Amino acid sequence: MTQITGTTRVYAILADPIHHVKTPQGINNLFQQAGFDAVMVPIHVAPSGLATVLQGLREMRNFDGCVVTVPHKTAVIPMCDALTLEARHIGAANVLHRTADGKLLGGMLDGEGFVAGLRSQGHEPQGLSVYLRGAGGAASAIAFALARAGASRLTIANRNTSKALELIKRISSLYPNLPLSVGSDNPQGYQLVVNATSLGLSEGDALPIDASLLEPKQLVAEIIMQPVETALLRAAIARGCPVHYGAPMLSSQIALMAAFMRGDANMVSDAT
Amino acid sequence: MTQITGTTRVYAILADPIHHVKTPQGINNLFQQAGFDAVMVPIHVAPSGLATVLQGLREMRNFDGCVVTVPHKTAVIPMCDALTLEARHIGAANVLHRTADGKLLGGMLDGEGFVAGLRSQGHEPQGLSVYLRGAGGAASAIAFALARAGASRLTIANRNTSKALELIKRISSLYPNLPLSVGSDNPQGYQLVVNATSLGLSEGDALPIDASLLEPKQLVAEIIMQPVETALLRAAIARGCPVHYGAPMLSSQIALMAAFMRGDANMVSDAT
Repeated sequence: MTQITGTTRVYAILADPIHHVKTPQGINNLFQQAGFDAVMVPIHVAPSGLATVLQGLREMRNFDGCVVTVPHKTAVIPMCDALTLEARHIGAANVLHRTADGKLLGGMLDGEGFVAGLRSQGHEPQGLSVYLRGAGGAASAIAFALARAGASRLTIANRNTSKALELIKRISSLYPNLPLSVGSDNPQGYQLVVNATSLGLSEGDALPIDASLLEPKQLVAEIIMQPVETALLRAAIARGCPVHYGAPMLSSQIALMAAFMRGDANMVSDAT
Repeated sequence: MTQITGTTRVYAILADPIHHVKTPQGINNLFQQAGFDAVMVPIHVAPSGLATVLQGLREMRNFDGCVVTVPHKTAVIPMCDALTLEARHIGAANVLHRTADGKLLGGMLDGEGFVAGLRSQGHEPQGLSVYLRGAGGAASAIAFALARAGASRLTIANRNTSKALELIKRISSLYPNLPLSVGSDNPQGYQLVVNATSLGLSEGDALPIDASLLEPKQLVAEIIMQPVETALLRAAIARGCPVHYGAPMLSSQIALMAAFMRGDANMVSDAT
């Protein structure tokens, strides 16, 4: 870290709990390398305090933006003054930019980060058939981003089927030509298998899919960063599958987040 | 600076303007030397946004406290949940501690910092006759601290005489045996002459006192840090007076501020 002075611009990450976040390290490292006089600090805020904290941030004139993470990504949506198309369709935001007049603009970069992470490891999603497990905020972002990246077909499997159907409906409104379907816990027949549920975060979690059906050519991807090797990834490796870890989704997103928070015109131009 | 992570405790300084503040450098240096996992950031907030920012800070669970400076020291008083005796009597606070349940406790350390700064330069105020110019927040804090430190008599001179009288009344209620009077712009006859007005901050300001009357044995003290050598100090040096610069008041206060913001029991025990 370079020295913090009265001219340093302030950024934050909002989370509950907060202790495990890794974004400040990544963003501050990027700021330093880029020579920006800026710093990101963690803000631990409970759901009950989120709106009040955002009101305070609006009034901080040297505050430019923040990353928003669990459990605030959905709750923050009605608290924004404007949203990117992506955030609006997904119904969640993971990054905010504060304009000079105190407005908050919400964006959602999880999906773009996931796709950039795949590419950083040499996996081009264009043309791939995709099986996506989960239909929450992260899964929605990834579904939209894979659709935009040119996946050939997309199947969404979720414990709560109506949530999967609802997500499919939202995707089809933007990508009417993409074949979409609801899946079971059987991932057979897809080139890319993505776990976008939280199953695997805790020791002893059930597997998100029936891993005994995985075939050696399928690429199995996680979004969980900790543990690095989830039970699903261990099972996939045991069955001879190539795997994609959770870390690149965040590391590939750091530069995107920094640009969005700073108000990069290309990043925020689709806000309404 | 050491690395900021999800476990780092957050501190701030509230000011408007903010660019000139030097407290983050001092506090962050102290945190690092003490091995605290903590960081202070600047918060630029206008008077109209102060209450909203404080509400937001209450909801930040990893926020422990902040320094409050111009123009917020008086305005913050009714926004605190509790005040130290000193802050209540002075009617201004320059440091807040956030308790674990989101309460804000206000304290005023400017006076204590000024006295500690004098001592750090070998000037013991006990027994000195004092001429104090100014009756605002900083002057009030210094007046109370000099009374507590055992000044033998205290004269307060202010353009607005009723403000000086009002300050004298407040001091006499706590220090009934201290000789107090209202002064003119003539500092003759006092061992310590203190400028606690803002005259000298800007090039071309009028002198706060009639410096042509200064005598070579009088110690002339400033609270202005920038410029380092005000017109008053230059005039005092030209007349052969020893001088005391503005910087020690803040540098001597850094450790006091850090202890207060962190909730040090000795610092906050007189809150009501």
